[in-house]
Amino acid sequence: MKSDARRQEVVSKAAELFDQAGYYTTNMSELARAVGLEKPTLYHYFSGKDEILFWIHEEFINHLIEKGESRDSSTLTATAELEATFKDLLELMDSHRGHVRVFFEHGRELTEEHQSTIRTKRDKYQAIVQGIVERGIKEKEFRDLDPRLVTLAIFGMCNWSYQWYRSGGALQSDEIASFFFSLLLDGLRV
Amino acid sequence: MKSDARRQEVVSKAAELFDQAGYYTTNMSELARAVGLEKPTLYHYFSGKDEILFWIHEEFINHLIEKGESRDSSTLTATAELEATFKDLLELMDSHRGHVRVFFEHGRELTEEHQSTIRTKRDKYQAIVQGIVERGIKEKEFRDLDPRLVTLAIFGMCNWSYQWYRSGGALQSDEIASFFFSLLLDGLRV
Repeated sequence: MKSDARRQEVVSKAAELFDQAGYYTTNMSELARAVGLEKPTLYHYFSGKDEILFWIHEEFINHLIEKGESRDSSTLTATAELEATFKDLLELMDSHRGHVRVFFEHGRELTEEHQSTIRTKRDKYQAIVQGIVERGIKEKEFRDLDPRLVTLAIFGMCNWSYQWYRSGGALQSDEIASFFFSLLLDGLRV
Repeated sequence: MKSDARRQEVVSKAAELFDQAGYYTTNMSELARAVGLEKPTLYHYFSGKDEILFWIHEEFINHLIEKGESRDSSTLTATAELEATFKDLLELMDSHRGHVRVFFEHGRELTEEHQSTIRTKRDKYQAIVQGIVERGIKEKEFRDLDPRLVTLAIFGMCNWSYQWYRSGGALQSDEIASFFFSLLLDGLRV
């Protein structure tokens, strides 16, 4: 196995373990065992748990930014682009189950330098989504509301599902995305 | 100071410390120092950090249930009752800052028995809010949508603010509650 693939395998497995057993209670020995490496070999790839924590954050936010940047705004309405964003966010509950909790709950355990790197990327992703809301307002698809607060409401609806969503439950993540999107767009009032 | 008042003071201070410094990295000695008690005296009130963690959860969810049950549904429209619920949830970001993160992020660190107690109360509170949504649907104030998913969307919008809200920032928590409520009710679409 190539070095990059091996590193990525460790990061994914670590995200799973941190999600299930907790970040603080999982140590490098358990992690090495879970990926079938000797502990010194694991240390060859990562200087320690901190660094693995950072890579979980990196993978997660890079994935979201790529998704956001992959769409061509010139061919999509803001409404369609926003709906796709809801799907991106809910899809994470299946595709990045472990990453999600780690990203939302353990950002403060990163080193100062890593926190700053991740904050910049998180702000970049927030700006992408806020940009869709702003375009929708400009093009008269959306009401003229504070785009930052709308964006934070969207993140709330979608991201919060990590607290209750279970893969293989009665509702698929893309059904939940459609439901939330339609609720946000058309409102609850009769 | 009466024993109950002293216990509550410890719980509040612990919630603050766990929020700021982290649950795992705060120990009983630091906690004793922060509330001006000798460590043995602290152990007179609480058997350990686990028990304090449980009381933070208890206070938080009891507070929400009391708020929910304090309103008389017979004199309020479902719309008014739901708006009050948004305010209850956002108000927590100021009134229970420390409790909020602990409740959302450290439930799994409770003992099995405590988890079960808290889960029952959390479900009870969720049922209160879902009951408001169901009543609004029945009385034709709200669209006929899945009331559980609507409730989870509401919790998402409101609860997620613990990730970004700062007391004393540009927006007060009740302004955010009003904004989110109006966005949910009337939707984003023009």
